[in-house]
Amino acid sequence: MITTEFTEAFGIEHPVVCGGMTGVGTAGLIAAVANAGALGFLSALTQPTPSKLDAEIRRTKQLTSRPFGVNLTILPTINPVPYDEYLQVIIDNAIPVIETAGSSPEPLMERLKAAGVKVVHKAVAVRHALTAERLGVDAVSIDGFECAGHPGEEDIPGLVLIPAAAARLGIPLIASGGFATGSGLVAALALGASAINMGTRFVATIEAGVHDNVKKQIVENSEHDTNVVFRSFRNSARVAKNAISDEILEIEAREGTTFADIAHLASGARGRQNVLAEGRMDDGLWWAGQSQGLITEVLTCKQVVDSIVAEAEELIARRLAAVVL
Amino acid sequence: MITTEFTEAFGIEHPVVCGGMTGVGTAGLIAAVANAGALGFLSALTQPTPSKLDAEIRRTKQLTSRPFGVNLTILPTINPVPYDEYLQVIIDNAIPVIETAGSSPEPLMERLKAAGVKVVHKAVAVRHALTAERLGVDAVSIDGFECAGHPGEEDIPGLVLIPAAAARLGIPLIASGGFATGSGLVAALALGASAINMGTRFVATIEAGVHDNVKKQIVENSEHDTNVVFRSFRNSARVAKNAISDEILEIEAREGTTFADIAHLASGARGRQNVLAEGRMDDGLWWAGQSQGLITEVLTCKQVVDSIVAEAEELIARRLAAVVL
Repeated sequence: MITTEFTEAFGIEHPVVCGGMTGVGTAGLIAAVANAGALGFLSALTQPTPSKLDAEIRRTKQLTSRPFGVNLTILPTINPVPYDEYLQVIIDNAIPVIETAGSSPEPLMERLKAAGVKVVHKAVAVRHALTAERLGVDAVSIDGFECAGHPGEEDIPGLVLIPAAAARLGIPLIASGGFATGSGLVAALALGASAINMGTRFVATIEAGVHDNVKKQIVENSEHDTNVVFRSFRNSARVAKNAISDEILEIEAREGTTFADIAHLASGARGRQNVLAEGRMDDGLWWAGQSQGLITEVLTCKQVVDSIVAEAEELIARRLAAVVL
Repeated sequence: MITTEFTEAFGIEHPVVCGGMTGVGTAGLIAAVANAGALGFLSALTQPTPSKLDAEIRRTKQLTSRPFGVNLTILPTINPVPYDEYLQVIIDNAIPVIETAGSSPEPLMERLKAAGVKVVHKAVAVRHALTAERLGVDAVSIDGFECAGHPGEEDIPGLVLIPAAAARLGIPLIASGGFATGSGLVAALALGASAINMGTRFVATIEAGVHDNVKKQIVENSEHDTNVVFRSFRNSARVAKNAISDEILEIEAREGTTFADIAHLASGARGRQNVLAEGRMDDGLWWAGQSQGLITEVLTCKQVVDSIVAEAEELIARRLAAVVL
């Protein structure tokens, strides 16, 4: 057992989190994460309507009696999203913890606090983490440059970002980006975090509802097999290296590129579905973190969590203890 | 005391290294690092001739009776550098360890081995580290994306690069890039390294022979205050953010930029001297790592090393030990 500020504040067995992943964070995976004693988040907006989210939460509860959370990512969109209704579903289902991302959680805080829902906010910079703390969130999940998805534009990896955040935050800090192993968990704890968040590692599990080709590709890929696309639009996203992300990078390198020049390649939900559901690996953008280089086999969620905790315990109690004379 | 594979193989008290720094790695600093029980490297090419290096080594030996090394960086240059003569000076002075960087150490290995000089090779990718191991080097110093100077073009931070290298190397691994604290040392040890290398942290010491403005600037700067210039020439260098590095980035962002377009800004030794020796902070490029964000005061080398080791010991023996139940 590894007991930290995070495990105590959130009542979770292990200091391991599976944050919200669009297209991946559904009932089967999140229940398996919960049953492994970690904290998983369903992805609210992967469900096309609030009532579908309601059904997905019920499905998850049938698969686990342990606590799990829901991620609600608030981004500017062309078609309005009924955020209030998604939020009401979360509250009505007595979900104990929400993960907010994308923009400030401020508009949600009053309702969440009144309903007794704990809030974990995802941030990519110390100043955003401090703002979230001031707003009353219960923990911050800070994403380093290594992470899949949106690392921001400042390119600060965890080795520097985690201690810089820990030095200024009073609430529990969840370290995200580049984590897949027990040695990473110990590094995160040493740097001042009290849990790790893992995305890519949980995609490469038996229970993740994605095509086997995706899981195999993560195992085969090295730390070099990611691309950071959309940098020229200041909306950087770390995705798996493939024919499409390579082509986007080439087009972005040309002066004067606009989003219209790559819109046909960055085709959102459809491209993601080609990859995640259909296993056509070169037929869409899909998020992958540099932690790919540390993932060597597809395991169950319980095997992932148990092996990480066991490695971390052994590392702290034996290998590290032995270097101090 | 923290005893690792590195401290035992190299006979150094603490698992802390100050690698070669052009314009900074001179007698005063390197002797102070040695006297603090860490391993410092004089920068050979900071000395304009082999006989000046010989004099600098003698000066260092007057200031310390402890072991220190010399860095020899081999890069393509317009004016031929008498590498063989520099190497002979290193061997003739019975320097116990050399740090090679810039290109493969292969051409030097036979002479170094015959003379009983240990070799630490700096690499930025696992494949280069493995090549160096095959060539018979005694340790690899692996530089993550966070580092000052040349991080390579693949942007892999230490959280992923260190364990990826440790999984495949049999020789001691020195983790470099983003380190300035005891918690960083523990993170590095957890990730599989047996020492940390620090550059920026040792520049911000009393004994570093650079202008006080440089030391003050490092303390004031946050982790955001670096720029990666020369990316468009595939010769990336992380330098301090200032008027010149900002201007270079702007010019590089234009399509078709050639080195000639920025040569007047990237003025090498002269610009570095403006900053390091004269403290004119906006009048040249100078290397700085993201670890700036973790450096809060100018200290002596002994204070730096002692506080890092004490923090690491406390972290391992108490704070980490307490999370394992």
